[in-house]
Amino acid sequence: MTEHIRSAHVGTSQTTARTGGYGVLNDGDIQKLISIVGKERVSWREADLMAHSADESWADPALADVVVWPLSTEEIAHILRYANEEGIPVVPWSGGSSLEGNPIPVRGGILLALYRMNKIVEIREADLQVVVQPGVICDDLNAALRHLGLFFPPSPGSSDVATIGGMVANNASGMRAFKYGVTRHYVLKLKVVLPDGTVATVGSNAKKSTSGYNLVGLFTGSEGTLGVISEITLRVVGLPEKIAAAVIPFDTLPEATSAVYECARYGLEASALELLDSPVVRVTNAQQGLSFLEKPTVFVEFHGTEAYVEDQIEYLREIARDNGCLDFQLSTDYETRQKLWRARQVAHDSMKLSHPGCTMIAGDACVPISKFGDVVQFAHNLSEETGITIYVFGHAGDGNLHTEVIGYREDEEQFARAVEASDAIISYALQVGGTVAGEHGVGLMKRHFMPQEHGESLEVMRAIKDLFDPKGIMNPGKVLPG
Amino acid sequence: MTEHIRSAHVGTSQTTARTGGYGVLNDGDIQKLISIVGKERVSWREADLMAHSADESWADPALADVVVWPLSTEEIAHILRYANEEGIPVVPWSGGSSLEGNPIPVRGGILLALYRMNKIVEIREADLQVVVQPGVICDDLNAALRHLGLFFPPSPGSSDVATIGGMVANNASGMRAFKYGVTRHYVLKLKVVLPDGTVATVGSNAKKSTSGYNLVGLFTGSEGTLGVISEITLRVVGLPEKIAAAVIPFDTLPEATSAVYECARYGLEASALELLDSPVVRVTNAQQGLSFLEKPTVFVEFHGTEAYVEDQIEYLREIARDNGCLDFQLSTDYETRQKLWRARQVAHDSMKLSHPGCTMIAGDACVPISKFGDVVQFAHNLSEETGITIYVFGHAGDGNLHTEVIGYREDEEQFARAVEASDAIISYALQVGGTVAGEHGVGLMKRHFMPQEHGESLEVMRAIKDLFDPKGIMNPGKVLPG
Repeated sequence: MTEHIRSAHVGTSQTTARTGGYGVLNDGDIQKLISIVGKERVSWREADLMAHSADESWADPALADVVVWPLSTEEIAHILRYANEEGIPVVPWSGGSSLEGNPIPVRGGILLALYRMNKIVEIREADLQVVVQPGVICDDLNAALRHLGLFFPPSPGSSDVATIGGMVANNASGMRAFKYGVTRHYVLKLKVVLPDGTVATVGSNAKKSTSGYNLVGLFTGSEGTLGVISEITLRVVGLPEKIAAAVIPFDTLPEATSAVYECARYGLEASALELLDSPVVRVTNAQQGLSFLEKPTVFVEFHGTEAYVEDQIEYLREIARDNGCLDFQLSTDYETRQKLWRARQVAHDSMKLSHPGCTMIAGDACVPISKFGDVVQFAHNLSEETGITIYVFGHAGDGNLHTEVIGYREDEEQFARAVEASDAIISYALQVGGTVAGEHGVGLMKRHFMPQEHGESLEVMRAIKDLFDPKGIMNPGKVLPG
Repeated sequence: MTEHIRSAHVGTSQTTARTGGYGVLNDGDIQKLISIVGKERVSWREADLMAHSADESWADPALADVVVWPLSTEEIAHILRYANEEGIPVVPWSGGSSLEGNPIPVRGGILLALYRMNKIVEIREADLQVVVQPGVICDDLNAALRHLGLFFPPSPGSSDVATIGGMVANNASGMRAFKYGVTRHYVLKLKVVLPDGTVATVGSNAKKSTSGYNLVGLFTGSEGTLGVISEITLRVVGLPEKIAAAVIPFDTLPEATSAVYECARYGLEASALELLDSPVVRVTNAQQGLSFLEKPTVFVEFHGTEAYVEDQIEYLREIARDNGCLDFQLSTDYETRQKLWRARQVAHDSMKLSHPGCTMIAGDACVPISKFGDVVQFAHNLSEETGITIYVFGHAGDGNLHTEVIGYREDEEQFARAVEASDAIISYALQVGGTVAGEHGVGLMKRHFMPQEHGESLEVMRAIKDLFDPKGIMNPGKVLPG
C-alpha cells in the first residue's frame, strides 16, 4: 500500500456476491474479518449496508463495503490492526441518531456496528460510577440506574436511541446541560482501541485528576476519528428529590429571549432553560395534539429539594412577569411534566412531519448568552426576507440555538437558498464569538466552517489526527475539511 | 543544532557577568532576548535566578540561565521562536506556588516570568465571562468580580498568590471543586503560543462546543509542556445568596470518613466537603490561636439560596448525628465563617510551622469516594507503624486526599523512609483505582508514577508532547518520566 488509504470507488476484484460498497475491500479482507468475528457477524448484504448508510442529517447516504458487529474490545483491536495494515477505512457506528453525518461511511470500508456491545458492565453504586459498553442506550442506562436513585444527566433529544458510545464520541449534551454540563463532564475513564490496534486505558476512577495530558477529554468528542471507544466509565449523580416544570409564553420573541437572558445572567439554577419560537409550538401542537399558546415560549425545568425548587420558581415568576409573559403554566406532577417535556423532545419530529417531503437542514450554533437574542432575531429576519421556513428553538440558557431550515431537494434553487440561509445563521454565530457546533459535532456537514472558526488551531487539530491515525483509516472525511 | 535540545551543564562561552545558570545560553542569545523585550526585562543576576528556582515542593532548586519578563503575546512568540530555533529550554513561571516542582528550570534556559502580564483584559459581564492575562492572581480576579455579583469558583489553598495562568496550566481546583468542578470546567478560550512561536487561539466564547478536537482541555493541565498560555477567557458564575459553614468533629477517623462518604453518596450539595485529621486540627489551633476540638473533623460549606442552605444543613445534621458526631458548629455570619475557612486554608502552613526545619512531602492522590476512608486509614496506620508524622486532610467529598509526610533532610535514613511512606500511600491510591494527582499536577515529583498509572496511554502522551514540542524546549523534564 503506497496510497494514504485505499481509494474509494477504485474497486478491486469482487468474486463474492456483494452488491453494495465501494470496492475498497477484496475477498481476502472479508475472509480475514470472518476469521476474527465469525461469519454471522460480517455482512455485505445490501439491506445491511443500507441500514448503516445514513444518520438523521441531510447528508447523502453512502454504503460501506461490509458491516461488522464486534462483541469485544479484543475483536475491535484485531479488526483495526488489520484495517490499519491494509489501509481500509473503519467507521464506528452506534445509534445512528447523529445530525451531522458523523457515522456515514463516505469512503466505504468497514462499518463497525457497536450496538451489540450493549452491556452495563458494572454499576459501582458506592462510587456513583457506571461502566458500560458503547452500545448501551442512554434511556436504558437511566432505567437501570433509577431504582438506585441515580441518573446520568446528559439528555439529547434522541435519548431513546442514542447510545453512550455515540454520546461520548460526539460529546452530546441536550436540555439538561444548563445545570449538569455535557457528556465530557461525566466521562472518567475510557478503553480506547487506537487505529493500529493498541488498546489503551485513559483516565481513572477518581472524580478528578491532573495526572498527565487530558486524553479522556481529547477522545470525548473526537467523533470516531482518533480510535474506537470500547468501554466507558461514567460518573453518575443522585436523582433530584423534586422536579418541576414551567411553560411561559411571551407575545414577542425579544421578550422571550430577554427573559431567558435574565435567567442565565442572574443565576437561575434551572435544569433546563429552553426556547421555542411560535412556529415550533404550532407544529408541536398540531402533530402531538397539544394546545399550548402559539407564541414564543420559554420552557424551564427545575431539579432540587422541595424548598429550593419553590424558591427558584418564585424567582422565575418575577423574571417572567418583568418581561411581560402572557401566562405561567406550572407543573409539578409527573404526567403533566412528561407531556411538557415530551412536547419539547418531539419538536424535531413535529417539524419534519409538518413538511412532507422536506429536508431539514439542522443548525446547532452556540453563542455567548448576551448574543442569543440577536442570533434568534437574525434567523427570524432571514426567514421573513427569504420566505424560507426556519424553525428556531434550542437550549437557550446555554446560548445553544437550534435552527431547522426547511428545504426541498426537488427544487434545486430553493434548496440552495435554504442551505445558504442555514450557513448565514452559523456565520453570524461565529461573528459574535460563537461556535458552529454546540452539541452535534462537526461530522460531514460543518467541516467547511472549520477554517473560519479555528484559524491556526485547525492545523493543530490536523496534526493530532495525523499523529493518532497516520493512515487516515478512522472515520475518514469527518471533522476536518479535506 | 543536532542535539534534541542544548544539553544542560555543558556550557558555552560566557563573557557576561552571569553568575547562575547552566550555561545553556551564550551572549548572542542574551542579546537577542534583550532585543525582543529590552534590557530592563532580562536578568541573569543571581538574586533573580534564585527567586525563580523553587516552588513550594521539596524538589531541589535549579537555576535558569536568564529570567525574562514578557509583557505581551507577541513578545512570548518572539522568544519562543528564537528558543525553538536554538534549542533553548523555556520554563513558564507565574505564581511559583505549585507543589510538585512544576516550574523549576531543571535544565536551565529561559525562565519566562509571566506575572507582570497581570491585566484583567475585559470583564464581559453580560456573558458571565472574563478575559485575563496569565499573571492575574486568583483572589485579585475575584475581588474585581465581586461588585458585579460574580466569582470564579476554583479556589486553591494558595489563592492569594496563585495566578490564573498557573491554575490553568495545572488545572487547579481546591475546596470548592465538590460543587463547582475544576479550572478546566471554566476555561472557554485560550491564546496559546506554540513552541515554534505560532500563536493559536483555541476554543470560543460559547459556553459549550463540540467543534473539532478539545484543544482547550488539552492545554489546560499541560503544565507548560506544550506551549505558553498568554491569554485566558474564563466562564464565571453568580455569587451565592447565602453562605454557611459547619464544623463537625468525630471521635474516630472511621466515623468522620463514613460521614463524608454518606454526604457524597447521597448527594449533599455542599460547596466544600473537607476532612482534617486530629493532628491537622491540633497544629492549626496551635499556630492560628484557634480552639477547635482536636478530633477528626469534617468541614462543610454551603452556597445557595437561604431556603436551600437551610434544607441542606438539616440533611447534613442528620448524617452527622447518624455517624456519632461530637459537636455540630454552624456558622452563617461572615466573620466566623472566614475564621473556619481560614483555618482550613492555612492548614498547610500550620503544619510546616509546627516542624521547624522539616521538609513536607506532599501527597495529592484522588480515589473513588468509597475508597476514601480506606486510603485515609492506610496513611494513618502507616504513620503509626513507621513513627513518621503523616498529616492527613483533603477535599474528601471529591476523594482527593492530601497527605503531608514530615521528613528531615539532615537525617538521610529518616528522609528516605518518609519519601517511601509518601510513595506507599500513592501506590495504594493507584491500587484502588485512583490517580496520583488530584489537583497539583505531576511536575517533577510524581513522574515516576506515570508508567504505573497510565500504562499504554503514557506512550500516547509522549507522542503528543513530541508532536507539539519536537525539540523538547517547553518546560523540559516535567510530567513525563525521562
